[in-house]
Amino acid sequence: MSYKRVLLGPGPSDVDPRVLEALSRPTIGHLDPAFMEILNDIRGLLQYTFRARNEMTLAISGTGSAGMETCVVNLIESGDPMLVCINGVFGKRMADVAERAGAKVTTIEIEWGKVFDPDQIRQAIKNVKFKVVGIVHAETSTGAGQPIEEISRIVHEHGGLFIVDTVTSLGGMKVEVDKWQIDACYSGSQKCLSCPPGLSPVTFSEAAVKILDQRRSKVQSWYLDLTMIRQYWGSERLYHHTAPINMNYALLEALKIVKEEGLEKRWARHLANHQILKAGFAAIGIKYVTQAGYELPMLNAIAIPPGADDLAVRKQLLNEFGIEIGGGLGVFKGNAWRIGLMGAASTRSNVLLFLAALEKCLAEQGVKFDRGASIAAANNKASQLREN
Amino acid sequence: MSYKRVLLGPGPSDVDPRVLEALSRPTIGHLDPAFMEILNDIRGLLQYTFRARNEMTLAISGTGSAGMETCVVNLIESGDPMLVCINGVFGKRMADVAERAGAKVTTIEIEWGKVFDPDQIRQAIKNVKFKVVGIVHAETSTGAGQPIEEISRIVHEHGGLFIVDTVTSLGGMKVEVDKWQIDACYSGSQKCLSCPPGLSPVTFSEAAVKILDQRRSKVQSWYLDLTMIRQYWGSERLYHHTAPINMNYALLEALKIVKEEGLEKRWARHLANHQILKAGFAAIGIKYVTQAGYELPMLNAIAIPPGADDLAVRKQLLNEFGIEIGGGLGVFKGNAWRIGLMGAASTRSNVLLFLAALEKCLAEQGVKFDRGASIAAANNKASQLREN
Repeated sequence: MSYKRVLLGPGPSDVDPRVLEALSRPTIGHLDPAFMEILNDIRGLLQYTFRARNEMTLAISGTGSAGMETCVVNLIESGDPMLVCINGVFGKRMADVAERAGAKVTTIEIEWGKVFDPDQIRQAIKNVKFKVVGIVHAETSTGAGQPIEEISRIVHEHGGLFIVDTVTSLGGMKVEVDKWQIDACYSGSQKCLSCPPGLSPVTFSEAAVKILDQRRSKVQSWYLDLTMIRQYWGSERLYHHTAPINMNYALLEALKIVKEEGLEKRWARHLANHQILKAGFAAIGIKYVTQAGYELPMLNAIAIPPGADDLAVRKQLLNEFGIEIGGGLGVFKGNAWRIGLMGAASTRSNVLLFLAALEKCLAEQGVKFDRGASIAAANNKASQLREN
Repeated sequence: MSYKRVLLGPGPSDVDPRVLEALSRPTIGHLDPAFMEILNDIRGLLQYTFRARNEMTLAISGTGSAGMETCVVNLIESGDPMLVCINGVFGKRMADVAERAGAKVTTIEIEWGKVFDPDQIRQAIKNVKFKVVGIVHAETSTGAGQPIEEISRIVHEHGGLFIVDTVTSLGGMKVEVDKWQIDACYSGSQKCLSCPPGLSPVTFSEAAVKILDQRRSKVQSWYLDLTMIRQYWGSERLYHHTAPINMNYALLEALKIVKEEGLEKRWARHLANHQILKAGFAAIGIKYVTQAGYELPMLNAIAIPPGADDLAVRKQLLNEFGIEIGGGLGVFKGNAWRIGLMGAASTRSNVLLFLAALEKCLAEQGVKFDRGASIAAANNKASQLREN
């Protein structure tokens, strides 16, 4: 059976038919010269998308969390001190991954929905020399976008390596791996790249590769060991594991679409649709749970309006309109919704459809609001933006 | 670009168009009720294919090596003694994975291409109480099929858990997880199941699940931690990582095809095509590198005939006929070829095409053999088999 959805959750996002077509091309071998060219093309387009010249730029054969684990286990050896900054589920996950990797983990945690002030990082690393500092750029669980550049400067002044989670941000808002001096950066295929889930783009700086080269112990995960995987992606083309061939076809096509649109235009599109949705929410009294000014363009985390039933509304959206949105995670479970406008799903039409459908669900739940106001405000905002 | 190949290597194998079509269906969410049904259906069909009633039967979001690592890291805690039986690349890999997982690893290694005699295992575990014993059912690097049942009995008499690698065997020859009392078994989607690579079916016995429940430490890999993954595949449906949605569509379709054909018929088809190919090889003097009587039906490892150039022949097969075969791995590098007849690729037509193409390549290299003899012998064998 085949299902048609409008994917406005925290990912996966809607996939362009071109990508689905690429996915379904006949499978070829993982050592076939034609597939080697596909890997080269993927590397080139990932370098473009990450804004990184790093030679070690590739797609890990797993979803975003496999990318997180890859970055951690390749840079950490048993007993290495690592600082993890937590303001949501994915920071918490990184700390868990780091502990399992044998790191001596220190965490700083702030209220979920808020972002870190660089001074908080400065304080945390003042007295300890951390080998690695990890942070999440776009916290999918809270909708908060963390400014990265100044924190990176602080981390590097203290001689640390900087891992940044861009699972949700890559391709949907500015990510500048080289300029921001990110040492290890990972993402997922199924968010703003609009490819199905199953691959995790990763890039390592020269400094990170040097640390990898100097390891005293083997990487604890065989499957995610970059000292071997790079010999497959590199000119040696040494067999490591059988790459997910068709998923790589799809990723290549998705990255081509990113390049055709152009990164800056893609970021601008995500931002505009977010602003339009936000105007619609404001008009019917819906508030973000995220610190004002740091709301992610591709992931809108809003408080469930009083009187609305979390599950009933999500079920109605799915069954009546085929629209998927996300529920709250962690501290937001049961009291927040997460509306994604990611990649191919970030369109004017989806914003209007979602607001209209949401109004119907809320009205039927007896929630009080100015009927039709979200649509009027969204259209008004869209016209304003077009004029600029 | 799209490439058409005849995949007669060690995997991936040719994928049925039905599976490619399923792969390209629109992506839906990993918590969508419709996707939950897909996971349930996959579990049921994997139980059928593994011949296992195990509740914990699921597909890991990675390739076969991720399945290997899953079995090891979930059953092993730091310092646990594990015996790994090595007669090829994949036994060696399992030992490496186990060491990285902190196991106290003992290995027994026999000549590559040979299979273990149960007495060798009996000797090895006589004086040590191993928590886990690992072995490869179908060694893709040597083409040897290891009888499992008696070894399993010996391992269990000594109170050990038994991990078996069925990456290459599952769906192509008899695998009996329940009957053979295998505690943890993993496979790959891209061999005899004829699905693209990217998922690893795994099944755990009740005894293995009990060990998992009694762990004193966290599983070292977050991504492969079955204590969490089972809450996603189970009735809780708790989010762990974003499942590779489209790959699961494809796996479900591939498993439906397995069930439609029927396991026993599928095993018989693989065996018959192997016997036909073997008759063809014999007629032109090509010898297996595998111990006689233990050659795998789906993976024929043969010695490169004197006078033939390894790379030149493989290149010609690929460029002139679109046929991929595998080179030798490990000790067989440069002196063996591996011809897969897996899943959808195990057909009479592929056997004949391959033998005919190989004869051309060998003739052009000046190799001496009775021209046309392989085809005559293969056709003769096929007719004999049909008469039975």
